[in-house]
Amino acid sequence: MKQFLDKDFLLETETAKELFHKYAKDMPIFDYHCHLTAKEIAEDRRFSSIAEAWLGEDHYKWRLLRANGVPEEYVTGSKSDKEKFIKWAETVPQLIGNPLYHWTHLELQRCFGIDEVLTSETAEQIWQKSNKKIQQGNFSAREIIKQFDVRALCTTDDPVDSLDYHKQLKEDHSFDTKVLPTFRPDGALNIHADTFVNWIERLESVYGSVIYTFTEFLQALSNRVDYFHEVGCRLSDHGLDSSFYVDADQQTCEIIFEKARNKRSISEEEATQFKSYVLVFLGKLYSNKGWSMQFHIGGLRSTNTRMLEKVGPNTGFDSIADFTYAEDLSNLLNELDITNELPKTILYNLNPRDNYMMATMAGNFQGDIPGKIQFGTAWWFNDQRDGMEAQIKTLANVGILSRFIGMLTDSRSLLSYTRHEYFRRILCNIVGKWVENGEYPNDVESLGKLVQDISFNNIERYLDIELER
Amino acid sequence: MKQFLDKDFLLETETAKELFHKYAKDMPIFDYHCHLTAKEIAEDRRFSSIAEAWLGEDHYKWRLLRANGVPEEYVTGSKSDKEKFIKWAETVPQLIGNPLYHWTHLELQRCFGIDEVLTSETAEQIWQKSNKKIQQGNFSAREIIKQFDVRALCTTDDPVDSLDYHKQLKEDHSFDTKVLPTFRPDGALNIHADTFVNWIERLESVYGSVIYTFTEFLQALSNRVDYFHEVGCRLSDHGLDSSFYVDADQQTCEIIFEKARNKRSISEEEATQFKSYVLVFLGKLYSNKGWSMQFHIGGLRSTNTRMLEKVGPNTGFDSIADFTYAEDLSNLLNELDITNELPKTILYNLNPRDNYMMATMAGNFQGDIPGKIQFGTAWWFNDQRDGMEAQIKTLANVGILSRFIGMLTDSRSLLSYTRHEYFRRILCNIVGKWVENGEYPNDVESLGKLVQDISFNNIERYLDIELER
Amino acid sequence: MKQFLDKDFLLETETAKELFHKYAKDMPIFDYHCHLTAKEIAEDRRFSSIAEAWLGEDHYKWRLLRANGVPEEYVTGSKSDKEKFIKWAETVPQLIGNPLYHWTHLELQRCFGIDEVLTSETAEQIWQKSNKKIQQGNFSAREIIKQFDVRALCTTDDPVDSLDYHKQLKEDHSFDTKVLPTFRPDGALNIHADTFVNWIERLESVYGSVIYTFTEFLQALSNRVDYFHEVGCRLSDHGLDSSFYVDADQQTCEIIFEKARNKRSISEEEATQFKSYVLVFLGKLYSNKGWSMQFHIGGLRSTNTRMLEKVGPNTGFDSIADFTYAEDLSNLLNELDITNELPKTILYNLNPRDNYMMATMAGNFQGDIPGKIQFGTAWWFNDQRDGMEAQIKTLANVGILSRFIGMLTDSRSLLSYTRHEYFRRILCNIVGKWVENGEYPNDVESLGKLVQDISFNNIERYLDIELER
Repeated sequence: MKQFLDKDFLLETETAKELFHKYAKDMPIFDYHCHLTAKEIAEDRRFSSIAEAWLGEDHYKWRLLRANGVPEEYVTGSKSDKEKFIKWAETVPQLIGNPLYHWTHLELQRCFGIDEVLTSETAEQIWQKSNKKIQQGNFSAREIIKQFDVRALCTTDDPVDSLDYHKQLKEDHSFDTKVLPTFRPDGALNIHADTFVNWIERLESVYGSVIYTFTEFLQALSNRVDYFHEVGCRLSDHGLDSSFYVDADQQTCEIIFEKARNKRSISEEEATQFKSYVLVFLGKLYSNKGWSMQFHIGGLRSTNTRMLEKVGPNTGFDSIADFTYAEDLSNLLNELDITNELPKTILYNLNPRDNYMMATMAGNFQGDIPGKIQFGTAWWFNDQRDGMEAQIKTLANVGILSRFIGMLTDSRSLLSYTRHEYFRRILCNIVGKWVENGEYPNDVESLGKLVQDISFNNIERYLDIELER
Repeated sequence: MKQFLDKDFLLETETAKELFHKYAKDMPIFDYHCHLTAKEIAEDRRFSSIAEAWLGEDHYKWRLLRANGVPEEYVTGSKSDKEKFIKWAETVPQLIGNPLYHWTHLELQRCFGIDEVLTSETAEQIWQKSNKKIQQGNFSAREIIKQFDVRALCTTDDPVDSLDYHKQLKEDHSFDTKVLPTFRPDGALNIHADTFVNWIERLESVYGSVIYTFTEFLQALSNRVDYFHEVGCRLSDHGLDSSFYVDADQQTCEIIFEKARNKRSISEEEATQFKSYVLVFLGKLYSNKGWSMQFHIGGLRSTNTRMLEKVGPNTGFDSIADFTYAEDLSNLLNELDITNELPKTILYNLNPRDNYMMATMAGNFQGDIPGKIQFGTAWWFNDQRDGMEAQIKTLANVGILSRFIGMLTDSRSLLSYTRHEYFRRILCNIVGKWVENGEYPNDVESLGKLVQDISFNNIERYLDIELER
Repeated sequence: MKQFLDKDFLLETETAKELFHKYAKDMPIFDYHCHLTAKEIAEDRRFSSIAEAWLGEDHYKWRLLRANGVPEEYVTGSKSDKEKFIKWAETVPQLIGNPLYHWTHLELQRCFGIDEVLTSETAEQIWQKSNKKIQQGNFSAREIIKQFDVRALCTTDDPVDSLDYHKQLKEDHSFDTKVLPTFRPDGALNIHADTFVNWIERLESVYGSVIYTFTEFLQALSNRVDYFHEVGCRLSDHGLDSSFYVDADQQTCEIIFEKARNKRSISEEEATQFKSYVLVFLGKLYSNKGWSMQFHIGGLRSTNTRMLEKVGPNTGFDSIADFTYAEDLSNLLNELDITNELPKTILYNLNPRDNYMMATMAGNFQGDIPGKIQFGTAWWFNDQRDGMEAQIKTLANVGILSRFIGMLTDSRSLLSYTRHEYFRRILCNIVGKWVENGEYPNDVESLGKLVQDISFNNIERYLDIELER
């Protein structure tokens, strides 16, 4: 019987323990995809309480509170921080088998130095202890980032963002961690959304010129890619939640763009044509800049209209879609590859049933550098022990695990860096089992290098960004 | 080396053993979805032989007999009960890794007190022994139900059913188990089926009035919901085997209904429109009554025309479909939720590849009570060790396992209550492994409560039906 | 800690070890689906080096080399055999968790008697040692086949093939292994392919008569089936990579065929109609001959146009498709079954998400002989430990594992017979775990028979081909 969350948490063999403690644990972090804002880091955000840090923006927790029957006023509503915290404390003991149970206690241990288990009974004590810690000097955004030895992190940014905070951080020599923007142009691609024209107007504003035509639109996007590159961006990101590839030509897209620009309605077919053309256009820009391109595929978003109107988007009412997209993806990657303009690409699927399809798809377009096309780490709902094991084993079975660029937090919370530890434990555990079961030679040094590469070195090499060591 | 099917069957840790034997084993049963008839309970059905009990209606066994090359005359045909039993006895040893191997021997042990393993060699002896047991007084429908401590069970009933046997049982104070009807209106929804007009005529007959218009049709359904409620019904059930949601308005459905009523052909699109509208209409009725709504999604039925003509439907020629339905389901649930009329809902998927989609879908519409939207237990072909483990772990990973309403038999057989034991062993085993691996604190009391809740208490609370304890 | 790849490789229990060593290991091999050519066996091919044997045709290895960033000139290009071998040796240590890591070392041990692990450091030594072995007398196609005790193997052949080498082998009494052709008429079914007319011309040539009409086309196919049967063919094979069943009548197909024959373009719908009709026609021929029919469903092929033009098809740019096909498959099997002309059929799915759909589909059309419809062994990307375990457990859960016809190599390489050993170890390990965990009685003799049946006896009975023992 192992103690809950002791130092050998999730490490089931001696080899796993050695790999984790001796090799993986102390590697720095390169968190190449997250949803922190540069602003909160630039301003060195501080929290008023553990409730703000934990429950202020975390839709993972909100979903579980609702599933536990907690009224919305305690979730996103008007109840006090402490009342919300108490509801979370009542919910936590229910979460056996859920990653939030582990994340919660990892964060209590690592961020607050609290070893107690969170329950209704311990809630008051943990509330006091954690808030005391918060009120001490070393619990700000930058301090947390330093504590976890995060050498670089990539935020997720709209092309119309000014990136002022990123520039401010770049020039701030008191803070070593690189905070780099990521180019996420969903606003440019979702031409059927009500918000499209408004987005174009914001683009005009940062571009500094009116955008009447499709050609001007593409020029403006290209201009923003240049700007992002200057500020340090080396990654783009796309959320693809429905059909995203058909043959499309510029002339047709000119007409579609004009329609949308004039607020006339766009058919689904037209929206897909437009998206396809712009994706290919952008992919070539990324390739030219040496960027990496991320595709997050398969969300089913804003499913709950009543709650969307009440609390807005990205508040825990999104789930997993089941549309099929192997052909779309294959054709899109091929269209870029045909002219040798396929950038480094990271493919994330939300529906785990697509793991093998995605991992083998990556194998169709390799070349140039090791692991050029990555089968991305377990994402969102898959970011738990079983999901990560499935992703790692799928990649190993049909690709090259040792070239994997590893974990990211994908998080809105500064406390989430413990997920890197969680991932590294799971990785070391899988490798340890293979080795102890005679499936790979017991050469601890090369295995140590493997887990270190996946923990940090591979992503540094992949993005070609040198960091201070 | 553990003995086959000993008292610690499927329990791999000490914690699992303690949880099962001390907490889960002796909990009563609430079998909230099955295919027994109220008639056989009201009449206290007795069997002529183990062959009738086992092979009379069990299409699971029929499929395996056929897969083993046994001619149809020994399956559903004219051979004697004993000859059929012998064929089954010859087949059983082939069934390594199949749940029928376990169910067969659990039933032999628990229902007949027979510890021998069934083979060609032991067939004669087991035939004699089991039939002797059957001929003794305490082997009737009611005795079996009492033996397994079944406090309540929900049959599956057509809205046109008179429910006379349910009423008879309700008034019979010699039998304590609640036998409640479930409202399963597939006949009302499958407007494209040849049987639709005939079904409407049966509806007219129980409704006591002619049904010319769609409005009258909806009124009749509403009337039957009222009637079922009076008799004790608190659950509905729907089998959804193809596209089931598009926008649909009443006017269009009036026309579609009139067409069908006059035996004119209906397009697939029209059938889906009709189904959508009626599903929403019914969902609101269920919500109003405080019922729970069940969706069983993804069967591919009556695939084998030759055998359908020979032995009829539901005889073992159904399998797993692969159509995609996340959007349909999301839109349907949303349509009900928008007006705050989404009832408690239990979602069952037949294709296990959809586990994560379904479990996360449930999370989009939670609220009001703990576990309002349930990711239903492993169903039909998934009702085996691997399938149940996958369902339990998926639920735990993205939802709240402790709010799970647990197992049901879904069975036509009175001997199937052992499946609750099978489920409880698997549940305790999973929980035991987590605890012994340090993934949850070793607090046996709260874990005992967890497995007891999932075994019985949660479903009692969920359906809000108080039972004698 | 087990030693890497020792004699108990992958065998985790004592029962597994006993089953493998005492029962499974020494069973002969019936490799009923592979991509060897009869020519290389007839001519008793010899290799110039281990590089030719390993890297000459193996697109599994080519994919991994590219994923490791190795330039194409070292993969399929102009570099020397030794230079290519060195690149492979550098790549192999990266392949932790990949089946190629195991296959590579199993082949080194079994085929070359080399126990060293392949790395950059050992490359030179292994190059020397293996090539020495190759230059010795007993390293030819026939010698390898004999060494692995292969009693029969089925190649994969085009209906337009003359089968001269098969006939030559049949008459060669110095070589006992049966080398049987398989009828793979993809060329006949892919009417939308550019190569269709050319294929018809080749068909005319072997048929010895012009083919103007659809009726003549069917007659020619029938004639080739007769011819293949005479030469010993008992199996057909079809690769189905898109929609493959709609209702279709002969008259429509006459018109479609005429169009294609005259190089006019064919719609997708027409191509599917044509394919459906011909599949049913052929299925009836197979049934009449007592053949078995194989469906390999779900490849996404030739995805990479740039590399297709550079190195041709089947060179490692194929992956897993995600189209849905349960209805197509059900309707096709039903169409044949309705007239009692469904042949024995083996169903292979490439996307593992479809495992349960396929395994239950098989159960809809059983009868006549044990295991008539087979859920085929883990295929291509699934041919690894996790994939094989998933296939075996799925089959056991919803079908009858003991009737399984087991493993095949599906390989272009003569060294791949070790994959049968790999499969047998995995099979014995699963069975051993069940038994030691009390899930099946510990009757080693009947379990020994089980693994022997699946290793060899079942396929011999299934194809009804008696072999010398």
